Amino acid sequence: MQCELVFTGSELLLGDVSNTHAVYLGHELAKLGIEVILQTTVGDDWTLMEQVVRGALERADLVVTTGGLGPTTDDITKDVVASVLGVPMVTDAESLEQMRKFFARRGTEMPSICARQARFPEGSRVLPNHKGTAPGALIEDKGKIIIILPGPPRELRAMFETSVRPYLLEIPGRGEVLRTRVLKLTGIPEYTVQEKLKDLGGPGNPGLGYLTKPGEVQVRVSAHAVDPAAAERLVEELAGRITGLVGEYVFAVDDEAPERTVGDMLFGRGLTISVAESCTAGMVAARFTDVPGSSRYFCGGVVVYNNDLKRQLVGVPNEILERYGAVSENTAVAMAEGIRRIAGSDLGLAITGIAGPEGGTLVKPVGLVYVALASDQGTQCHRLILPGVRSAVRMGTVNAAFKILKDSLSAKAPAVEEPLQDTGAP
Amino acid sequence: MQCELVFTGSELLLGDVSNTHAVYLGHELAKLGIEVILQTTVGDDWTLMEQVVRGALERADLVVTTGGLGPTTDDITKDVVASVLGVPMVTDAESLEQMRKFFARRGTEMPSICARQARFPEGSRVLPNHKGTAPGALIEDKGKIIIILPGPPRELRAMFETSVRPYLLEIPGRGEVLRTRVLKLTGIPEYTVQEKLKDLGGPGNPGLGYLTKPGEVQVRVSAHAVDPAAAERLVEELAGRITGLVGEYVFAVDDEAPERTVGDMLFGRGLTISVAESCTAGMVAARFTDVPGSSRYFCGGVVVYNNDLKRQLVGVPNEILERYGAVSENTAVAMAEGIRRIAGSDLGLAITGIAGPEGGTLVKPVGLVYVALASDQGTQCHRLILPGVRSAVRMGTVNAAFKILKDSLSAKAPAVEEPLQDTGAP
Repeated sequence: MQCELVFTGSELLLGDVSNTHAVYLGHELAKLGIEVILQTTVGDDWTLMEQVVRGALERADLVVTTGGLGPTTDDITKDVVASVLGVPMVTDAESLEQMRKFFARRGTEMPSICARQARFPEGSRVLPNHKGTAPGALIEDKGKIIIILPGPPRELRAMFETSVRPYLLEIPGRGEVLRTRVLKLTGIPEYTVQEKLKDLGGPGNPGLGYLTKPGEVQVRVSAHAVDPAAAERLVEELAGRITGLVGEYVFAVDDEAPERTVGDMLFGRGLTISVAESCTAGMVAARFTDVPGSSRYFCGGVVVYNNDLKRQLVGVPNEILERYGAVSENTAVAMAEGIRRIAGSDLGLAITGIAGPEGGTLVKPVGLVYVALASDQGTQCHRLILPGVRSAVRMGTVNAAFKILKDSLSAKAPAVEEPLQDTGAP
Repeated sequence: MQCELVFTGSELLLGDVSNTHAVYLGHELAKLGIEVILQTTVGDDWTLMEQVVRGALERADLVVTTGGLGPTTDDITKDVVASVLGVPMVTDAESLEQMRKFFARRGTEMPSICARQARFPEGSRVLPNHKGTAPGALIEDKGKIIIILPGPPRELRAMFETSVRPYLLEIPGRGEVLRTRVLKLTGIPEYTVQEKLKDLGGPGNPGLGYLTKPGEVQVRVSAHAVDPAAAERLVEELAGRITGLVGEYVFAVDDEAPERTVGDMLFGRGLTISVAESCTAGMVAARFTDVPGSSRYFCGGVVVYNNDLKRQLVGVPNEILERYGAVSENTAVAMAEGIRRIAGSDLGLAITGIAGPEGGTLVKPVGLVYVALASDQGTQCHRLILPGVRSAVRMGTVNAAFKILKDSLSAKAPAVEEPLQDTGAP
């Protein structure tokens, strides 16, 4: 089954935004065994867009478009598809009603221009948009399939997952499926990862690839086969060998959000946590609270960027700061124990380090970070060297902190369940 | 002058790598007044690539290809171009000699397959590759221009800068240069922005476009003209009218990082700041400290996610929390004054709000946020309603907080300079 992707949006042609749909849809379709043979990016130009959609429909079995579903007059994707198929645009009453309700819940009337969002090429199956107001559409026509998706990445992904993937899975004979595993590492430079894994090969089947982001190195394992289980086994086996060599640096796998994993572990064990951050300055707290409901285990914390606040807010003794310095094991331990005591939480996490570009010395280079974790069983402190520039050191530290929390919580079995008195708490 | 970009490489179709060429070339060509009308990504498939190159040459004046210049048999870009133009492939003796020297310097003989890299469509001007071994090519044919660039980003950029840009600059009547301005708004939904600006038009010259990101709506003004100053004036004039209508929501322009603007203002005025965050939970602190050297004005702060910490760390009185609630003007003011006092900073910024998805009520809906700013002139509190889901409310709040700081600091002229006693502080 061959597929073409048509991305619409002048901002993509001007290079104003990076095309994240190409990566997301490329991956997702490959996983389903659907081969993308061509991607085209076109602006809000009727003639060209029509030419592109017509060409795509001639060559491919499946055409997926993104963008151009909004309420304004430059949003023409559905109209162009209707024109190519030679069908009229019709209003979907239910979509219109949904939109009216959406605005009513916000206490306003639907702006009249939004009604365009409820119009579709005749014969469309409407794909609900759970993250926005513009629905998508799916049309089967003369043995071809056209899927029309919204432009905002959140909306597109949600719609792909809830409507498109289930639909495509039902189509027989899609071909070889691709399976992948992405291992995300922190605290190690990319060239060291490659050096350690050099005997495991590169591209191929199964294949290995690398990608560096600030504070993280991704190792991507992929394999394809007609039998999904066979592809899975190839991936499994190679990923296992990689973990054997660099597992200590892996802080997340695939789309795992480590803040969510840690949050679930904390909640499952009935534990609370507070944080004291210096060089990461709120990044760990922000990540914890990205997760809805995190207030059940995350109390809060302090950003003690200067020494005064390290003394003032978490009671780091002046003699420790003077004798060992702000970036030291002693300071990290005092911060962790201080915030745990003040917040009355089960765990206290502290981070102090040198993010750079200034402030490094021979003994304490840029990238040196201490992460301390205090609990009722004492305080453990980890000394890390994070590679890269300021942003990489900071992001890498956040990733490493969640890795440390995960390891520490995994080591502890969940507390033995005792019948609890009902306190009325959730 | 109209241009099409043809990206080759199966890895782009599989979504294994993000297409950074689209952003780089899109920007660079727009700056030169060259309009990209279509981008196509195609794999190493002769038939499809030929179809794409032929179509591009029919529509556009300039076709730029990337990738497929390597030594292996799946590197077919130059051969395809030769086939479309109906010319033979010929060896460029000098390129061959350069390559032999390249390998000789490394103490090895040139692998025989590399000789392919010195073969070009007849009539090519060879573009030297200073960052790799595969040269590019430039061909003028029947009033059209084809430029063939390598795939690795480092090589492509170097070749564009040293060979392609100077060549394109020499072409008369490249046409019209593009000028743009991006206004970034927070605290207002996209449809309200569009509603307010509906009389200013849409795409066109000058043109208006919209883009939504979590916590931000971008209004993009663009204009083209042969005379750069004329394009600039068109942009200026339209941007001015937009600012007249929605300026109160603009927190940044173009690539401005508001945390840097605010940081510079604070440093310039000799002021320090501390923050107390509830719903943003460290995001404002993290943004402040993204900027190297921020320790000169940013002291730190607290993440008071639960009420205990609001009392404990910044001394919000229990009666305020009980009477008005954690999300209230009174609490925000107490937090701002509390952190300012504790940190001993000139300014204290506080944020409390309901990020959702839970916790909203009719009176206090999801998206309600209070931002308070305490100084020696008292404390001001702003009540905001941020649209969207949890991540959008949080990001929008951060953007709004920097906007409030910018406005407040702009209102204050820099302090009158007095001769300072040297305290030894930076």
